[in-house]
Amino acid sequence: MRQVLETFSFRTRGPGFTDITPELARFVAASGIGRGLLTLFVRHTSASLLVQENADPKVLDDLQGFFTRLAPEGDPRYTHVEEGPDDMPSHIRAALTQTQLGIPVDAGRLPLGTWQAIYLFEHRTGGRHREIVAHLIGE
Amino acid sequence: MRQVLETFSFRTRGPGFTDITPELARFVAASGIGRGLLTLFVRHTSASLLVQENADPKVLDDLQGFFTRLAPEGDPRYTHVEEGPDDMPSHIRAALTQTQLGIPVDAGRLPLGTWQAIYLFEHRTGGRHREIVAHLIGE
Amino acid sequence: MRQVLETFSFRTRGPGFTDITPELARFVAASGIGRGLLTLFVRHTSASLLVQENADPKVLDDLQGFFTRLAPEGDPRYTHVEEGPDDMPSHIRAALTQTQLGIPVDAGRLPLGTWQAIYLFEHRTGGRHREIVAHLIGE
Repeated sequence: MRQVLETFSFRTRGPGFTDITPELARFVAASGIGRGLLTLFVRHTSASLLVQENADPKVLDDLQGFFTRLAPEGDPRYTHVEEGPDDMPSHIRAALTQTQLGIPVDAGRLPLGTWQAIYLFEHRTGGRHREIVAHLIGE
Repeated sequence: MRQVLETFSFRTRGPGFTDITPELARFVAASGIGRGLLTLFVRHTSASLLVQENADPKVLDDLQGFFTRLAPEGDPRYTHVEEGPDDMPSHIRAALTQTQLGIPVDAGRLPLGTWQAIYLFEHRTGGRHREIVAHLIGE
Repeated sequence: MRQVLETFSFRTRGPGFTDITPELARFVAASGIGRGLLTLFVRHTSASLLVQENADPKVLDDLQGFFTRLAPEGDPRYTHVEEGPDDMPSHIRAALTQTQLGIPVDAGRLPLGTWQAIYLFEHRTGGRHREIVAHLIGE
């Protein structure tokens, strides 16, 4: 049984989804681990992780629209406003999605469904450098 | 340290909850692993996982009602409509719950609370075959 | 490769956030495990886990406000009312956040971001004893 740990950096460009599946698939393949468990952890509280559909980009547009309406900018009830009008909604949207994901590895691959991709979900208005710690255990 | 991996198939019958705790408890018991970590991963983007109360079925009814109201069918703001009026709300409801769960194993059992069950949460109107990859590591 | 498992008990005092990061950091340090995976599992369906900002306490106030408005007490559509007006909203708020978290361990530490803390998120009105199973695997 072995472990591999790597911290990935991604540059985002405002609210939306970055498909990180290719980087993760390469990480798993390069490890030489055939069966195991991959864990991803985002080191931020205004960006998150989501496994969602990779076929029709309108699914991602509609997901973004839903979260934008559910936790809108400029709600006068927010008291945490010092970091800008997009900060508190970003924390809420991150709280409603995932800071971490665990995905089994089988035959050296992530057994994602046909239409699944793993996304980094950025919530802040401006682009950011985002770090994801990837931990893989298996053999 | 050993690993076991199995893909479970469940047949759902429209929106709602399927208690998959018995199958998982049997899987853990059959593995012979006393202490470890069970990870579940749903290979779909319109069904999800949820640990919730197994005592009063009205809790599940009310949860279903909440998610139905929060992400209703037929919202005119959805642009992804080609797969039917129930598809986009299904993606949203899945995004708000879990694609994966990690649960420790202790003394050959899942240390669930007295009132906890593990549910497959179907979001599409029609029944579907749903696959869950179960990965167990431990000894 | 080794495993350590411990059940933590926390006393909460009504709806809100308990920072459990110090207890978890001590647990990891005491294990002697340098690299691995920590998994936390809450044994309840009306309390949950959340990784969120530890800097400005107003972030937590606003998160609490958001969840209180999204799943309010006394919604006449709830049918599960026998356990009090705060019970069904608690199940909903727990369903929207996390029952479990997986966090890598690197160099004997949790690689949390600068502003991240791990919170137990209580949803019931009264204080409760809450149990979290912590599982650590690594070497």
